[in-house]
Amino acid sequence: MNFSSDNWAGASQPVMDALTRHNHGSAPAYGADPLTDRITQRFRDIFETDVSVLFTATGTAANALSMAACARPGGLVLASETAHLHCDEWGSAEFYTHGMKILPLATTAGRIAPDAVAEALAKYREGSRFGVPAALSLTQATECGTVYSPGEVAALTARARENGLVCHMDGARFANALVHLGATPAELTWKAGIDVLSFGATKNGCWCAEAMVVFNPQSLPHLAIHRARAGHLFSKSRFVAAQFDGYFEGDHWLDLARSANGAAARLAEGIGQGGRARVAWPVQANEVFAVLTQAQIAKLRGEGAKFYEWSREGCEDDEHVVRLVASFETTAEEVDRFVALL
Amino acid sequence: MNFSSDNWAGASQPVMDALTRHNHGSAPAYGADPLTDRITQRFRDIFETDVSVLFTATGTAANALSMAACARPGGLVLASETAHLHCDEWGSAEFYTHGMKILPLATTAGRIAPDAVAEALAKYREGSRFGVPAALSLTQATECGTVYSPGEVAALTARARENGLVCHMDGARFANALVHLGATPAELTWKAGIDVLSFGATKNGCWCAEAMVVFNPQSLPHLAIHRARAGHLFSKSRFVAAQFDGYFEGDHWLDLARSANGAAARLAEGIGQGGRARVAWPVQANEVFAVLTQAQIAKLRGEGAKFYEWSREGCEDDEHVVRLVASFETTAEEVDRFVALL
Amino acid sequence: MNFSSDNWAGASQPVMDALTRHNHGSAPAYGADPLTDRITQRFRDIFETDVSVLFTATGTAANALSMAACARPGGLVLASETAHLHCDEWGSAEFYTHGMKILPLATTAGRIAPDAVAEALAKYREGSRFGVPAALSLTQATECGTVYSPGEVAALTARARENGLVCHMDGARFANALVHLGATPAELTWKAGIDVLSFGATKNGCWCAEAMVVFNPQSLPHLAIHRARAGHLFSKSRFVAAQFDGYFEGDHWLDLARSANGAAARLAEGIGQGGRARVAWPVQANEVFAVLTQAQIAKLRGEGAKFYEWSREGCEDDEHVVRLVASFETTAEEVDRFVALL
Amino acid sequence: MNFSSDNWAGASQPVMDALTRHNHGSAPAYGADPLTDRITQRFRDIFETDVSVLFTATGTAANALSMAACARPGGLVLASETAHLHCDEWGSAEFYTHGMKILPLATTAGRIAPDAVAEALAKYREGSRFGVPAALSLTQATECGTVYSPGEVAALTARARENGLVCHMDGARFANALVHLGATPAELTWKAGIDVLSFGATKNGCWCAEAMVVFNPQSLPHLAIHRARAGHLFSKSRFVAAQFDGYFEGDHWLDLARSANGAAARLAEGIGQGGRARVAWPVQANEVFAVLTQAQIAKLRGEGAKFYEWSREGCEDDEHVVRLVASFETTAEEVDRFVALL
Repeated sequence: MNFSSDNWAGASQPVMDALTRHNHGSAPAYGADPLTDRITQRFRDIFETDVSVLFTATGTAANALSMAACARPGGLVLASETAHLHCDEWGSAEFYTHGMKILPLATTAGRIAPDAVAEALAKYREGSRFGVPAALSLTQATECGTVYSPGEVAALTARARENGLVCHMDGARFANALVHLGATPAELTWKAGIDVLSFGATKNGCWCAEAMVVFNPQSLPHLAIHRARAGHLFSKSRFVAAQFDGYFEGDHWLDLARSANGAAARLAEGIGQGGRARVAWPVQANEVFAVLTQAQIAKLRGEGAKFYEWSREGCEDDEHVVRLVASFETTAEEVDRFVALL
Repeated sequence: MNFSSDNWAGASQPVMDALTRHNHGSAPAYGADPLTDRITQRFRDIFETDVSVLFTATGTAANALSMAACARPGGLVLASETAHLHCDEWGSAEFYTHGMKILPLATTAGRIAPDAVAEALAKYREGSRFGVPAALSLTQATECGTVYSPGEVAALTARARENGLVCHMDGARFANALVHLGATPAELTWKAGIDVLSFGATKNGCWCAEAMVVFNPQSLPHLAIHRARAGHLFSKSRFVAAQFDGYFEGDHWLDLARSANGAAARLAEGIGQGGRARVAWPVQANEVFAVLTQAQIAKLRGEGAKFYEWSREGCEDDEHVVRLVASFETTAEEVDRFVALL
Repeated sequence: MNFSSDNWAGASQPVMDALTRHNHGSAPAYGADPLTDRITQRFRDIFETDVSVLFTATGTAANALSMAACARPGGLVLASETAHLHCDEWGSAEFYTHGMKILPLATTAGRIAPDAVAEALAKYREGSRFGVPAALSLTQATECGTVYSPGEVAALTARARENGLVCHMDGARFANALVHLGATPAELTWKAGIDVLSFGATKNGCWCAEAMVVFNPQSLPHLAIHRARAGHLFSKSRFVAAQFDGYFEGDHWLDLARSANGAAARLAEGIGQGGRARVAWPVQANEVFAVLTQAQIAKLRGEGAKFYEWSREGCEDDEHVVRLVASFETTAEEVDRFVALL
Repeated sequence: MNFSSDNWAGASQPVMDALTRHNHGSAPAYGADPLTDRITQRFRDIFETDVSVLFTATGTAANALSMAACARPGGLVLASETAHLHCDEWGSAEFYTHGMKILPLATTAGRIAPDAVAEALAKYREGSRFGVPAALSLTQATECGTVYSPGEVAALTARARENGLVCHMDGARFANALVHLGATPAELTWKAGIDVLSFGATKNGCWCAEAMVVFNPQSLPHLAIHRARAGHLFSKSRFVAAQFDGYFEGDHWLDLARSANGAAARLAEGIGQGGRARVAWPVQANEVFAVLTQAQIAKLRGEGAKFYEWSREGCEDDEHVVRLVASFETTAEEVDRFVALL
């Protein structure tokens, strides 16, 4: 009953198999190998357009380097008040951008309202001594386990692009959003106005496979040098490419995400049944935010369940919002045992 | 006949096996897992002291983050004029230190002379508007394929430490130096005055396993946050630890280094025999720098040999210094074929 | 009727006289001149302790360099939500600290409540991925024209110091606070727990005289090099010192502040009389924040009054908070004419 | 007999008079005042083109902010090995550019040879891991007291511009070069390929008047925000403008430079006469570099002469190169007394 985080999971068997399969012979270093080329082509197929793909070691790096490449002095990054980029990355975006401010926007269930972007743009115009908006960053799926529709993404980016902002998507759980929506990767990104995507595969079945997928290279000058200078250009790049090979083969990545989303849905359903507890936000990806009493929390933990307390937003005195994350490895048995304990 | 670089090699079988072996179940993220703990203990055994160990994605990151943690405004990094840190890392050290200068010191066959450190210390004293020495970085084995003896390391660090400098070793090819010298890891590092080591395992048989090994944590405040903020804290840290597990098991790492060093020695011997060509510097690790004529270079390449031209230092008009790197995968047959072609 | 800002004023006559008086002969550059020494001693007398004094070109530089010298990776600056440092300095603090976040604290009439500091300290503890509090910055007088008592300063800094934070005071209008309180400079700063003060004299009668006054040098290592590296070490430092000479002579600086505060008080009284309008916050320094109707604003501007609209906080539909700043040059006639127009 | 530096001098009388003259009434802050406008227009007249002018507190700031505005990751600044920007500014350029390397070029008597630029461009091409040239910085007059002709400037910038470099001139002693050459400001800058000039007036008779004069604004995006964020935007900008008003009035600035250059020429002539000593480099501005014996140095200092020892380049055992700087205040009497003592 481990619902701590999807990054507690290991690597899926097809991903490990691909690692082993591609470990032979020598290959040019620093991403000039044929496998990295082939996987870049695979990304182009998946996104139905001519993207460039830059692997990084972590999602934090992908987010922060994307911001670095579009940084300007006195620039602002518009992001949700719960954005991982803002709340959970040790000030990485501020560091890599040499001090851009992150302007936290009000959200509903983790999603930025289009009005919030418009208001920020109206308030901080060129010449503002507070700063001037330079980039918009959305998380898909959000940190609250909800998902933006392609139309919602497009609405947010439209206002931003009119004002010259670069539009970034933190896709640490991109696959989970994708299978929930039944949309194509293209519809959810460049067709909806996204310039660059942090494409996360680590949480969903790789051990270390993250990439910046760039749809609009002009908006991110020098991105490749930013990455190299940051120490994020792997010499043996083919081993990241290998993981992606296993990840994409036969739509394995979508199966993994469906499995995790399914476990989360089963969990949410179980929690809601018979008034056991309530969920704080709609469950649209692989995360469930449940409002539990301290007694419930203590009991579950006593029986070995693992999860994090998240916040006290909208809680009664003896309640807490807990975060329950399902991974591709989460089993129906684990879920059912957890629900039964409630 | 691929002598391009040791980072063109794959991962050794025991390293891959360890990756597979440790891929089961869930484990805490961000380095809090038991395997990372166990490997940290292994480092302590190997270095015979209480070290802290921080994995990074690349050697560039390990070098630059080490410098970041001891940075001061107006500080200087003393390093050899051929240091990878200075010449081949896209300005990473300057970036991470917010603009410390690297002061290139004159070298002999890649090794900094003790006098060069003393002269720099005498010239740039506290108050210097050029800058003030803050750190010394040595590469072991050097970028010229030579090795510092423990005594030579100690002599360099002694003057530096008297002046309050932090002493760093870039150990991208640490194992190669170790087996050449027959010294212990402790003798070559903290016993010789090193505060922090970039411990490289990627070139020598892992696919992505680098670590900062810290002997003197007080000299590098906030190193862990520097790493996290840079996006170099792996969520699934156990997979780096797994590689080290296979790497260290049964002194596998030393065997790999011995194999590569042996191939380089065989190559150097073959090149020197019968006056085929001369080597530019003593061959003490896994790199051979050979002075070849353009005709020789053309012929070798025509037959499929791969290597980089390095410099024209000490060359006649039609000569070039080429770099030939042996990896753990280099075979005697490859070496002999190359020599025969000369 | 110019109430735009106190930095629209010129230099007072005694300050200009001092500039002229000290312009003779040659003097060592970069602050090693006897006049800079003498003025440093004057600061020590005024603050009744052994301070170091570093001139800078602007208050923005004094604030940001103070933060730079106590920066740490992943650090947070606690400051009021209206702090000049946060809202009006082009991201200077974030730039100079290489990306520390500013955490805006809730305020009442511009003053941070002690609880806000305590809450931030409780929420963001060592290890927080959002960041860890590293410094507290108070503005005295505040951006809302109010003043902290020495006891209030001490209460705020006490909690901060227990947690190892460096305590900074932005004293762009320090003199105005001082004469309002009738406190000594010492009581308002180091005796109340302040480590470093941005001492502003430009707004109050100099043309360019700002200084970092350091009470606790250990908390700000390398501050002098931070300043020099930022290009804020004047070669002809004696001309800043000269301004301070005229500024301090015969308590001229306190007279200037009393004059400005008096004009503001007269303005506030006039505005309040007969229900002409209301002031948003108590007037304790040289700034009046008045809630005016659009009709009043239009009329005043039509008659040549100059001032900025500030916010719409607590306003009815047709109201606006305007900021009216008195300088040492503001006359009773200007004030009365403005009031009469209301 | 004070030949320490021209920044030991005070302000000239016309400059002080202008400061006093313009100190009346209120004026918009942050450079929006009419006098700043008027002086900007004066710069346009002097440079015969449409420049933008940004005042800074120091020449170090003007140099470093110019570099900041054209910085790119992994960029190199080409500058002479004796450049003030490199040797005497506390790492300011590296700091403001977030870690660009300065590549020191070989010089003859302080002047970069055109070949040195060409060689650097050939060696460090796009993709170089050492870095890629992004800017060229020349000092005029050089740190060795010599002067580039307009043709020499044009030759250096031509190669740089072909390769997309931004061309900067450090004009701390621009006026001294100008009067030596009898060229126009336009001929010496934009007509010779310069994009941005650090225009120094402090050393030559102001107390604090430095400006970035921008000929090619597209090459320096966001320069104004770089300056503001660095704390180099004076609130009472008109007082810098006032100094320039006095400085430019009736070609006062050229008179000041002529006076200083004349004193230096007289000094050089006296030193050379009768074999008293030799000068190290041609004296073309207001600096004399003389090769003196230790005995001469001791005697001169014993009699109260002030100057700095510079280097031991080209010296016999008991010799030293000393730097003797004449300012606008240096008198013939001082010079003659110094010569007589030799």
